[in-house]
Amino acid sequence: MSADGSDAGGRRSRARVIWLTGLSAAGKSTVARLVAAELRARGEAVEVLDGDVVRRLLCADLGFSREDRETNARRIVFVADLLSRNGVNAIAAVISPYRQTRDQARQLLGERFVEVYVKASVEVCARRDVKDLYRRAFAGELAQFTGVSDPYEQPLAPEIVLDTEAQTPDESAAQVLAFLDERGA
Amino acid sequence: MSADGSDAGGRRSRARVIWLTGLSAAGKSTVARLVAAELRARGEAVEVLDGDVVRRLLCADLGFSREDRETNARRIVFVADLLSRNGVNAIAAVISPYRQTRDQARQLLGERFVEVYVKASVEVCARRDVKDLYRRAFAGELAQFTGVSDPYEQPLAPEIVLDTEAQTPDESAAQVLAFLDERGA
Repeated sequence: MSADGSDAGGRRSRARVIWLTGLSAAGKSTVARLVAAELRARGEAVEVLDGDVVRRLLCADLGFSREDRETNARRIVFVADLLSRNGVNAIAAVISPYRQTRDQARQLLGERFVEVYVKASVEVCARRDVKDLYRRAFAGELAQFTGVSDPYEQPLAPEIVLDTEAQTPDESAAQVLAFLDERGA
Repeated sequence: MSADGSDAGGRRSRARVIWLTGLSAAGKSTVARLVAAELRARGEAVEVLDGDVVRRLLCADLGFSREDRETNARRIVFVADLLSRNGVNAIAAVISPYRQTRDQARQLLGERFVEVYVKASVEVCARRDVKDLYRRAFAGELAQFTGVSDPYEQPLAPEIVLDTEAQTPDESAAQVLAFLDERGA
């Protein structure tokens, strides 16, 4: 980095918060990892903020009520803000089912915020069911399970929609990267 | 940043977690701000993680029991780790009264961790009492107030001890910066 900090500035202006929202098993974490790997290969600084990991380390106190989900998201936004304003791309993979939560993130992060709707129907996600959660939700064992016993509010104007029913994870990742390239990221 | 990411690597290797521990009103936040300003003036990336601010944004759920204080510190360590491994210096200003908590941070962060004991006696801090907390603590209004109704375990082998009873804030900040320079930060 040059002594006048110009590189820090250059990094700062480019870094994004890539916010992957969607149902459980829609493919958020997989896409996050693929995009992160490619950005790292390009020499960019990246951190993945995975909902499950963050819950354990940052939000062990929180459940799945609307209020707790919003608090969870706000903490992730706080960390993503710290990272991205210092030139580190943050890729958040969080169900974040409420439109209001995501709109607040957009408001705070401004131009840095890239909302990515990782789209797959409840039926397809339930068929994947990698964590055996949909079965339990349909059996009535999980009270607040998004898409089954809890709402999911689809994004109205996301920057990107990934159709993970039709695309492979690699294709989805490529679509995100193409968007970033176009935007001059 | 060069295309091969060498600058990210360069920044990464230098970034530190400067952990300021000490009583309320010992001078942690003041020193944090002064050190941050100087590092920024040198073109370095820096974030201050102030205990009071972090409590509001990241830890509104937490009180002042030993367990809650440790959770609070662990969350700050989590964020400081993300920042510092991406070349962003993190300056934490947190009472963090328990030795075990700080030792865990040291273990996780390794060479990046710089423990700074911001040292002032309860008597001197109580005389400063900028937030009117000591008066209330001595009056029995604050049940778990560090140094009065709750323990403070002094660091055994901190990298730096700042005697804020004898030094001005500028002198304390200069001492931290001199240490970083010596270490090649």
